[in-house]
Amino acid sequence: MARTGRRPGQTETREHILAAARNQFGQRGYDGTTIRGIAAEAGVNPALIHHFFGTKEQVFAAALQLPVDPTVVLATITEGPRGEIAQRILRLFLSLWREPETRQSFLALVRSVSTNEQAAGTLRQFLEQVMLTRVADALGISRLRLTGVMSQVMGIAMVRYIIRAEPLASAEEDELVALVAPVIQHYIDG
Amino acid sequence: MARTGRRPGQTETREHILAAARNQFGQRGYDGTTIRGIAAEAGVNPALIHHFFGTKEQVFAAALQLPVDPTVVLATITEGPRGEIAQRILRLFLSLWREPETRQSFLALVRSVSTNEQAAGTLRQFLEQVMLTRVADALGISRLRLTGVMSQVMGIAMVRYIIRAEPLASAEEDELVALVAPVIQHYIDG
Repeated sequence: MARTGRRPGQTETREHILAAARNQFGQRGYDGTTIRGIAAEAGVNPALIHHFFGTKEQVFAAALQLPVDPTVVLATITEGPRGEIAQRILRLFLSLWREPETRQSFLALVRSVSTNEQAAGTLRQFLEQVMLTRVADALGISRLRLTGVMSQVMGIAMVRYIIRAEPLASAEEDELVALVAPVIQHYIDG
Repeated sequence: MARTGRRPGQTETREHILAAARNQFGQRGYDGTTIRGIAAEAGVNPALIHHFFGTKEQVFAAALQLPVDPTVVLATITEGPRGEIAQRILRLFLSLWREPETRQSFLALVRSVSTNEQAAGTLRQFLEQVMLTRVADALGISRLRLTGVMSQVMGIAMVRYIIRAEPLASAEEDELVALVAPVIQHYIDG
């Protein structure tokens, strides 16, 4: 039995819509994307998207939860030695970005927050109210230090996948971990 | 009276040259673009471009509204104790972002590289062929380490000014320097 009691067909349709949404947000940014456009790509009626998710903003929020699932990040941080937290965080993000689908999600997010104030606000709320509180509590560090960690992770994504400046863009994951993990660990240990 | 005392015709000519420059850099990349080519497209004498802007590097900075003059960055890095390079770099960028005009320039740049592959490519070439080489040579560090520094500076801008996640968004500059400068210095010192 499905956890939510939904028929399997519904779950598939939701996933299908979210995949179309990620693609549309990635291609067109937040502003350029419409529910109608997502519906057209997913081959469903726009009303169904409204029914499943609500507004465009809520479709966006649903689509962006994938690359930054709080539960996975939290588990990554807490399960293992404290001295290797930075390494685990970095390897988690590198593994997400390695996969085209999750990388596209992340890039769509950067594009949307860079060009759309509402999208930036949505992400900001999500980070401040969900992610930062839970992770800072789990680590026992200040939220300022945690936003420092976040800035370093986002910056790596910007340089590696958006600007694609060498040699960082083509660096091996192990090489990047050796370079960046000590820096992130510094934010955690103070 | 115009603020700069320029005749309106000069302002128009400058804008005309910058539009041609943006088009040339976009079409041909940083390497493939020449002052002569920009002059031809703008229908002006190449000497006028040198007179208004200086070198190709400076035309590029003006055309992309680069928030910082490459010459200033280089001077900031090389003039002063090596152990305080990170602090100087960070204070330079914080001072640029503090001013609405330069902050807007920087945000415009992030938006255009995030949404436009051609803009990202042009910036990438400029960074790889001009900035990174010169700064890495001046510092005597690897280019990989330098792209690490760049990633941290960009990440701070993303979190502080684009996502505006607290508490980093409202942190005092001194507090930010105390938090982030040791991290950047770590990239430099290894």
